[in-house]
Amino acid sequence: MNGNGGFRSFSTIMSPPSKAIVYERHGSPDSVTRVVDLPPVEIRENDVCVKMIAAPINPSDINQIEGVYPVRPPVPAVGGLEGVGQVYAVGSRVKSLSPGDWVIPSPLFSGTWQTYVVKEEGVWHKIDKRCPIEYAATITVNPLTALMMLQDFVVLNSGDYVVQNGATSMVGQCIIQLARLRGISTINIIRDRVGSDEAKEKLKALGADKVFSESQLNVKNFKSLLGNLPEPALGFNCIGGNVASLVLKSIREGGTMVTYGAMSKKPITVSTTSFIFKDISLRGFWLQRWMNLDKVKECRKMIDYLIGLARDGNLKYETELVPFEDFADALDKALGKRGSHPKQVLRF
Amino acid sequence: MNGNGGFRSFSTIMSPPSKAIVYERHGSPDSVTRVVDLPPVEIRENDVCVKMIAAPINPSDINQIEGVYPVRPPVPAVGGLEGVGQVYAVGSRVKSLSPGDWVIPSPLFSGTWQTYVVKEEGVWHKIDKRCPIEYAATITVNPLTALMMLQDFVVLNSGDYVVQNGATSMVGQCIIQLARLRGISTINIIRDRVGSDEAKEKLKALGADKVFSESQLNVKNFKSLLGNLPEPALGFNCIGGNVASLVLKSIREGGTMVTYGAMSKKPITVSTTSFIFKDISLRGFWLQRWMNLDKVKECRKMIDYLIGLARDGNLKYETELVPFEDFADALDKALGKRGSHPKQVLRF
Repeated sequence: MNGNGGFRSFSTIMSPPSKAIVYERHGSPDSVTRVVDLPPVEIRENDVCVKMIAAPINPSDINQIEGVYPVRPPVPAVGGLEGVGQVYAVGSRVKSLSPGDWVIPSPLFSGTWQTYVVKEEGVWHKIDKRCPIEYAATITVNPLTALMMLQDFVVLNSGDYVVQNGATSMVGQCIIQLARLRGISTINIIRDRVGSDEAKEKLKALGADKVFSESQLNVKNFKSLLGNLPEPALGFNCIGGNVASLVLKSIREGGTMVTYGAMSKKPITVSTTSFIFKDISLRGFWLQRWMNLDKVKECRKMIDYLIGLARDGNLKYETELVPFEDFADALDKALGKRGSHPKQVLRF
Repeated sequence: MNGNGGFRSFSTIMSPPSKAIVYERHGSPDSVTRVVDLPPVEIRENDVCVKMIAAPINPSDINQIEGVYPVRPPVPAVGGLEGVGQVYAVGSRVKSLSPGDWVIPSPLFSGTWQTYVVKEEGVWHKIDKRCPIEYAATITVNPLTALMMLQDFVVLNSGDYVVQNGATSMVGQCIIQLARLRGISTINIIRDRVGSDEAKEKLKALGADKVFSESQLNVKNFKSLLGNLPEPALGFNCIGGNVASLVLKSIREGGTMVTYGAMSKKPITVSTTSFIFKDISLRGFWLQRWMNLDKVKECRKMIDYLIGLARDGNLKYETELVPFEDFADALDKALGKRGSHPKQVLRF
């Protein structure tokens, strides 16, 4: 600064130096990521510098580092797709944000696993600070997926049913609660495993109407298990293979199954008669496609709704806040190396 | 008739006796069907008695007799789902039809394989007599399927491409021609067999832009074969199994594959990534469902359009008119017992 406002454009504002989780090539995240000190970067007139507060480790972050995700930022790259931060400094032309505001990336961009992020004003969405940070940091990738999938494929009315596999996933838990809030009931399918009775009770506590383990439904009298429940018009599949077929079998004539995950890495096999005579539709959902379709405004409105629910305790899921310094530990947990853990959320 | 108009409601008009192809139980059509003499039936005030002119033997007729079709009229039943006839007599309250008119069943009903059919006025649609009988008899099941599938799933514009397997089928041939009339190009996949070069030439003569045999496309450089062609937004599958995958691979991101047949009897297998990242939609089409959805008026308009095309020589496919007395022969040909034959159409 030279003390002369008229020459302000010649001055350069810089961000603080940053610490970031960087991968220089694609591969297993525990071998290709490392903590890197990044030098200060320029905050241009339309930029906002955000001091990150918290950011989760999502499966899509892991897939992106592995190089198996369709979006592949050029390496070296900073990991992480979502998170929450506090505005630290703004460029001279920034009008909508001020230092101290809480913001999240919307639309999503790669590179939230660092202490300071500089990006243009337009990609930051100001949120309500009364939302707990672990929810603010994780509100987009999973809860927004659940909300959009409930809204965008089939018109559902109070009293309708939906069915899903992988119901203990974070999206699964959000579907149960968001459906419940609209008077929509859920039939939930979970893996057979030690503790599956406890998992069933947890989902019921969230509002799940019916919870079955896969083996319960892998029987011939499948339909009798569902009894007199109204057949769902909409089903969600995040697993594939035979467990996708369980969802398909449950949905009603003319129903739709939306695939948004591939946990078993197995394809989906469908009889031709399901299409012709049962009139089933198969669709897919990928948040990053949906968010890019000139839907930023609409997405932010939905995010505000979700932030409000989380703030008021009406949307719940488990997370574990982990100090940023312990990234390696958190990554191991996120990779499933140490059994089952809640969603890992880095605390900067 | 008692010669007194005032007592007309007491008189009973009867149809002539009829000869019909009847099946008394489900099973292989060549063993369970026989020609039966049916007694005259009453023509009630809203009924129309139609002397059948011609009716085809479609695969769906065969499946219905076999009992593997979702619509199963109670047995004993008369076979046949479509056809053309001439109005022979009308009930006292019938206003829209007169003796001599040509009519087809619309919506479709079972029982066209008989010399006289009595049904209420509302199920008969009057058509242009200038249409050759072999087209009038076959205009609904296959050409209307092709037309609806081109219209009802994806908005196509002149210059767009569609892709289909089973392109030599009657629906396949209609798709080629109906697409062509709208400036839409077709990529066609046909079975490998003796005479496939001749089949390719025939389809090209109908307006097919590209024709490949399955083995040509079952290669790794699949995409290079399609060269710089615009990727189709819409694909049609009537085969299933691996040949459905060829259609799936050809369609573009966000595209739709519609399944309307199951010639291989094999299911369709799709990777989860096709749904999530390629945003593919899988749908099904079954004419009898589409026609029942309060779409009678709309269907009749489309049928008139197709009848007009056939009348003017702008919609062509091969048929073989066979005297009704030779039903057993025609059935053997339709069942594929004697190699490949054109669509068999019974001439009453």
